[in-house]
Amino acid sequence: MSLVIVGSVAYDSVETQCGKRDNALGGSATFFSLAASHFLSPELVAVVGEDFAAEDRAILEHHGIGLDGLKVEAGETFRWGGKYHEDMIGRDTLFTALNVFEHFKPELSASQRETDFLFLGNIQPELQLSVLDQVERPKFVAADTMNLWLDIARPALEDVVSKVDGLFLNDEEARQLTGERSVVKAAAAIRARGPRMVVVKRGEHGALTFFDDDMFFTPAFPLEAVVDPTGAGDTFAGGFMGYLAVQPAIDSDTVRRAAVVGSILASFCVEGFSVDHVASLERARIVSRYEEFKALTHVGPVSF
Amino acid sequence: MSLVIVGSVAYDSVETQCGKRDNALGGSATFFSLAASHFLSPELVAVVGEDFAAEDRAILEHHGIGLDGLKVEAGETFRWGGKYHEDMIGRDTLFTALNVFEHFKPELSASQRETDFLFLGNIQPELQLSVLDQVERPKFVAADTMNLWLDIARPALEDVVSKVDGLFLNDEEARQLTGERSVVKAAAAIRARGPRMVVVKRGEHGALTFFDDDMFFTPAFPLEAVVDPTGAGDTFAGGFMGYLAVQPAIDSDTVRRAAVVGSILASFCVEGFSVDHVASLERARIVSRYEEFKALTHVGPVSF
Repeated sequence: MSLVIVGSVAYDSVETQCGKRDNALGGSATFFSLAASHFLSPELVAVVGEDFAAEDRAILEHHGIGLDGLKVEAGETFRWGGKYHEDMIGRDTLFTALNVFEHFKPELSASQRETDFLFLGNIQPELQLSVLDQVERPKFVAADTMNLWLDIARPALEDVVSKVDGLFLNDEEARQLTGERSVVKAAAAIRARGPRMVVVKRGEHGALTFFDDDMFFTPAFPLEAVVDPTGAGDTFAGGFMGYLAVQPAIDSDTVRRAAVVGSILASFCVEGFSVDHVASLERARIVSRYEEFKALTHVGPVSF
Repeated sequence: MSLVIVGSVAYDSVETQCGKRDNALGGSATFFSLAASHFLSPELVAVVGEDFAAEDRAILEHHGIGLDGLKVEAGETFRWGGKYHEDMIGRDTLFTALNVFEHFKPELSASQRETDFLFLGNIQPELQLSVLDQVERPKFVAADTMNLWLDIARPALEDVVSKVDGLFLNDEEARQLTGERSVVKAAAAIRARGPRMVVVKRGEHGALTFFDDDMFFTPAFPLEAVVDPTGAGDTFAGGFMGYLAVQPAIDSDTVRRAAVVGSILASFCVEGFSVDHVASLERARIVSRYEEFKALTHVGPVSF
């Protein structure tokens, strides 16, 4: 199976209670593809500047990520700087320099157009639509979005929603998109517009996955220490989609396992700065945390 | 098995997006004992004023709640008024009139002193300590608390913590009590002070239960509509402790089931105003939601 991811590659400067890191490898497509690379070799479609470091390219290559779609353009790579609050949830953006990302026009190669799985990272809905126009009958397309596009590009975003199989968004965005206060009702309203899967992300409180008529809750794995929350949502989606793409069938059971795998990858992500942990993670640790995760919510039958 | 609950009985005036209710039966001990009454006949130790309505007393009696410890004193019953924000999470207190509750001095009868299970609702830690002095070798004592006591009665609260088997508190309180940012570390620090069980409540995001070396996560059951969140935490604790009190043993498996039962009772609670739903709930609905709850987090084994 093949998986193409379209999104951003960036350099992040992040400060948290645990320290500070400047110009660390980041961006939605980076986190996503590294997480997915634990299951298959995803193809990355993104743009970087001439300053993109050879060692960062080597990290991606080392994980089997296809870089034919990683364009290098004159100028600097997208840069973002932020400082997390003490609660490790709220954050202030210190600066955003889109640089070469400002004029990103994703173009898929002939083989990428025939991908089985496609993930549209959180970019302008118009660009997501342009990618949808390029692919030929993929098995499963999922998209991520954010409140900014609800505010400034709602018609295009609604078009995207109607054309994908899966949508990742947070609870506030689900409410804003549908006008429903209840996440259960909001997810049903989104599913009525097309997607058979809606994944409502709640950050440190986990995620609710709606797939056909199934509803599944995944907590965020409780950790002794969070070092850097950057990229957790993209890593969650990457683990989720990467795992899903190598399953023999897409059904409720595989989607449930995919959500747990995504949550596990995200838990490793936030235990380190930047991509440190997701890029150095061994299979055995994913497997053992999967067992811990199952135990975390397991409950036996009741007789009153 | 016997279960004694010490706490408040109140009249709540509540306004939410779904409507308004004045002078509705409320108070921590009311919600707790009604939830627990689905499993056994708890004894209520509380105080009300001469205005406490016969029909409200009848609701409690009808559920088999022992009212020998419900003192009626000259004056009015504790009254609280609040208005919930649109998110159904935040709320503004409009008024608090402690009335007869201001001078509440819990006194257990001879038989109540020999109770097997004791729940200390969220009252002043000094009063919780006075109740602890009255009981004789209970099997399991749990207490609830709030940030107010951390601020103004910390030494007494720490004394309570060291003397109970179980502590219910929210994540912010757990952090404030221990200075640990991670809930996992905070729970370990609290357990090191005595309680073998720590239940960290996260409102609409569920609860994390730590029992001996076991960690268990319970989501809040996702609902199509929340009508009135008042009493959810007390109902959770009441279902939890009521179920636990009738089990043949207190171990990880029973505690896990108790947490799910508590979460289910709380989910019914918030679907109606005041005690409407918890007081009219049939066993079959608890059983069927337990099955839905199990399904909500069930995940199968993985092979990568």
